[in-house]
Amino acid sequence: MKFLNKNYIIGIDIGGSKIIAALVKGARVFHKIKIPMPKNKKDFFSKLEKIIGELIKKAGGKQNIRGIGCGIGGALDLEKGIILSWSNVKFLDGLNIKNWLKKEFNREVKIDNDSKCFTRGEYLFGVGKDYKNVVGITLGTGVGGGIIINGKMIYGANGSAGEIGHMIINNGKDLEEATVKQMRKSKFSKMAAKEFEKNLGIGLANIINILDPEAIIIGGGAAKTTGAFILKARKISKKFIVFPQAEKNVKILNGKLGENAGTIGAAALFYSQNI
Amino acid sequence: MKFLNKNYIIGIDIGGSKIIAALVKGARVFHKIKIPMPKNKKDFFSKLEKIIGELIKKAGGKQNIRGIGCGIGGALDLEKGIILSWSNVKFLDGLNIKNWLKKEFNREVKIDNDSKCFTRGEYLFGVGKDYKNVVGITLGTGVGGGIIINGKMIYGANGSAGEIGHMIINNGKDLEEATVKQMRKSKFSKMAAKEFEKNLGIGLANIINILDPEAIIIGGGAAKTTGAFILKARKISKKFIVFPQAEKNVKILNGKLGENAGTIGAAALFYSQNI
Repeated sequence: MKFLNKNYIIGIDIGGSKIIAALVKGARVFHKIKIPMPKNKKDFFSKLEKIIGELIKKAGGKQNIRGIGCGIGGALDLEKGIILSWSNVKFLDGLNIKNWLKKEFNREVKIDNDSKCFTRGEYLFGVGKDYKNVVGITLGTGVGGGIIINGKMIYGANGSAGEIGHMIINNGKDLEEATVKQMRKSKFSKMAAKEFEKNLGIGLANIINILDPEAIIIGGGAAKTTGAFILKARKISKKFIVFPQAEKNVKILNGKLGENAGTIGAAALFYSQNI
Repeated sequence: MKFLNKNYIIGIDIGGSKIIAALVKGARVFHKIKIPMPKNKKDFFSKLEKIIGELIKKAGGKQNIRGIGCGIGGALDLEKGIILSWSNVKFLDGLNIKNWLKKEFNREVKIDNDSKCFTRGEYLFGVGKDYKNVVGITLGTGVGGGIIINGKMIYGANGSAGEIGHMIINNGKDLEEATVKQMRKSKFSKMAAKEFEKNLGIGLANIINILDPEAIIIGGGAAKTTGAFILKARKISKKFIVFPQAEKNVKILNGKLGENAGTIGAAALFYSQNI
């Protein structure tokens, strides 16, 4: 029993509007804690300290925690563990979150982009299990992405590959601005919904034309409220996809791990180096 | 001597407006023949037969030809060797070019997308030699692309990855339409040049945000006449790139193999399976 306990990983998903943290084993999530994203740095530290402390207690002590896996939005220096810049949560810019977590809790820490964690979670344990080439898209405060090719997460030369939400699709606006952000600004008007569908459709088509994945997996906090639009977006995407077989074969899927995908995928940083 | 001769490969680059064919050994090109793209299928067959026949003669006979590597635009079924659809050269739709070449010349035949051949050529022997992660962009009759990640060409689930020219960037228009096509339509007006720069800049930024490559290599028939705009496009791209280190580190390079890149990259299909 003690041996099994030791394999707990603390998975943390730090998004633009909330933090989810839990004890994780594979795809199983225990003692999940969910709090709104704090509004300043001081609050961020004290809240994070409190919820991680609580999880360690639930696990029966630090000795049962293998490590802390943490998914975070924004531009990260993955090697050093620094949040370089995050337009949705500016007060964390420059923070070395990896060092802070290590020092506070004396466990091994691994960090990654939050949308990559979502994609990894769904790829390993969710709706992406049967594929080797998938793109994950998170619709949340912003829009993020993760690209898996031949079973490997693509990080790029500077760790920033997958920033799908910042692809410009119309009139200088990026996919993030043209979908979730304009939707919130317009207070979910009908016209905004139509724009959302069209723009998400273009985003899907662009991804398919560039990467030709087996499947695109959609998730994130806004995916629930916008789920109905995804079918329409897929329809719209068809006319922009140039390769008939790619259009026919690609699967557009809703993630099945729900809000746990991010914590599961963050914890999974400890299971596999490649993914 | 005879042994060396045997290693000739016939490299063919079939683009929207011209065909280039040559005897190729590595990065060396012998007896290059260049003709305008024929206007119908009958002419296409007879011209191709003639120039390949000429190259075989120059090589001293079929026994000195290891194989035929052929780069072609449009959507291809790489396994079967069929041109599925090609908006710029409609009369070839449905042709099994691989079988035709095999039957005509009794040599092994390998085919690939023309922009992937360009990218492979520059990656193996040109300006991409020192990198492992590059994206090639061809500006020609259309706009094509090739994506190399960790030294491997990305084909996607249906062989269509890399269709960068069909990424929608503004008002339903794709990168191809918004750069080379509008430029030709407007007869190279100053305003069209400004649009070209802006739209290419957006295309570069999108590629960098999605793939974070070490280098982007630009080539193709229109790259010569538009070379001056590429510097400006790069400047414009900066404001759309979200990750500061990617913006700083990425190299935007002109190909150095000139119009030979496509034939060299098509012939290189015989040197390496992965690339």
